[in-house]
Amino acid sequence: MPSPADTSSSDHDASMRFAQALADAASPLTLGRFRQSFEVDTKRDESPVTIADRETEAELRAMIARRYPDHGILGEEHGRERLDAEYVWVIDPIDGTRSFISGWPLWGTLIALLRDGRPLLGVIDAPAVGERWSAQVGEPTRLNGEPCRVSGCETLTEARFYTTSPFYFAADERKGLDQVMEQAALVRFGGDCYGYGLLASGHIDLIIETGLEPYDYLALVTIVEGAGGVISDWRGRPLGLDSCGQVIAAASTELHRQALAMIAAAAR
Amino acid sequence: MPSPADTSSSDHDASMRFAQALADAASPLTLGRFRQSFEVDTKRDESPVTIADRETEAELRAMIARRYPDHGILGEEHGRERLDAEYVWVIDPIDGTRSFISGWPLWGTLIALLRDGRPLLGVIDAPAVGERWSAQVGEPTRLNGEPCRVSGCETLTEARFYTTSPFYFAADERKGLDQVMEQAALVRFGGDCYGYGLLASGHIDLIIETGLEPYDYLALVTIVEGAGGVISDWRGRPLGLDSCGQVIAAASTELHRQALAMIAAAAR
Repeated sequence: MPSPADTSSSDHDASMRFAQALADAASPLTLGRFRQSFEVDTKRDESPVTIADRETEAELRAMIARRYPDHGILGEEHGRERLDAEYVWVIDPIDGTRSFISGWPLWGTLIALLRDGRPLLGVIDAPAVGERWSAQVGEPTRLNGEPCRVSGCETLTEARFYTTSPFYFAADERKGLDQVMEQAALVRFGGDCYGYGLLASGHIDLIIETGLEPYDYLALVTIVEGAGGVISDWRGRPLGLDSCGQVIAAASTELHRQALAMIAAAAR
Repeated sequence: MPSPADTSSSDHDASMRFAQALADAASPLTLGRFRQSFEVDTKRDESPVTIADRETEAELRAMIARRYPDHGILGEEHGRERLDAEYVWVIDPIDGTRSFISGWPLWGTLIALLRDGRPLLGVIDAPAVGERWSAQVGEPTRLNGEPCRVSGCETLTEARFYTTSPFYFAADERKGLDQVMEQAALVRFGGDCYGYGLLASGHIDLIIETGLEPYDYLALVTIVEGAGGVISDWRGRPLGLDSCGQVIAAASTELHRQALAMIAAAAR
């Protein structure tokens, strides 16, 4: 099996151009439904799903199937195909559905491409505010085309901390979270994928979340790492398709180490 | 003492044009500092204050003093002047300072004009996302010039609920909040003033907060009411300069009543 190093950068560039085309195609579909009235369906797990989610994912899947018929696809709404393929696209048409259905503009479309299970590229597109972070392995993360960089913050007591909601944490997970929130310089909620873009741009320093799915976190890996940050599960292991959904992202290895020490006891 | 009804609507229109001019003047000052490096100072109450806050308020105060030298002014950063005047401007240059210093674009400039203690007009300007809600008594609330309207949602179990952070609530206040969060259809955090704009536009249905200051809530009154919503303290009383900072806003009188029943026990 060839290693990612065998792939020429022009292949990567073509993949990134295609990932950008996917984001371009998603944007009018999601924005066209944003702040319009629509039916909110409820999945078995109680997370809200909208028509916009399903339509957008169907369109992106069709584009991928036409261009790369042998690639695998994992999406939030329409399941998994060929996850044993060398290349697998992982897409979430609307990350932050709760934001979307309450008019909050900071939801995003997430796109990742894995090779042999390792993230090669990622896109966070936040079309309602016109911001798109993108990254591919070996190149700096870009916000709307301009390279961006994490803050490099190394001290928890100086860190600006985000998590989507403290109520997503189980009781044992909350202990470490509470310790982090008590020490951090600033605590804010309501992030979803947008927080990871802010971290890659140096505006926030630490994010800890739990219960994420592969389509929630795989696009974030190259974006955080390409900006100089660290992202892993709560044991410090790289994120992959089979990670358990406990995610930590930090602006430096030192900050990552400090926060990990507080949450590792509840790592799955 | 004349009642507000004695004031001609052209006087109100002139005041609203001036309030819009204040927001126009604030926007380049705040945006110019947004996502730039700056010193974060810490006030006695631990809320972060930035240079942008102080500079912007100083400019708005100067504009008000030139145009309406006999009006009173209450601002977050530079205190109070002539609060016994017939007309009092209440301004918060950056509501959501924690958002501002972590790159989050949903902070806002708040401007209210009171006459004899009652809100005559209000502006929520969110310049980083290009959205401005404005309202004056007797006219519909407008978002970027277009009339907007609350959802009219009448049932807590169907309501989309926002509060900035559950950790701002005291123990006795949290009981009611927890009850509301348990019943609401959707719970989100991280709102600040932007949530009230979304409520006026019909995208969310209920907001409950505590610990707000007059410059945090007085601009919201005409905006929520002009869109058909209800806003009060936790006893159901109108908000004024001397309210205690417990605020509830709802998309209908019925929803307001249902939520009030849960939080009234902790009303100050």
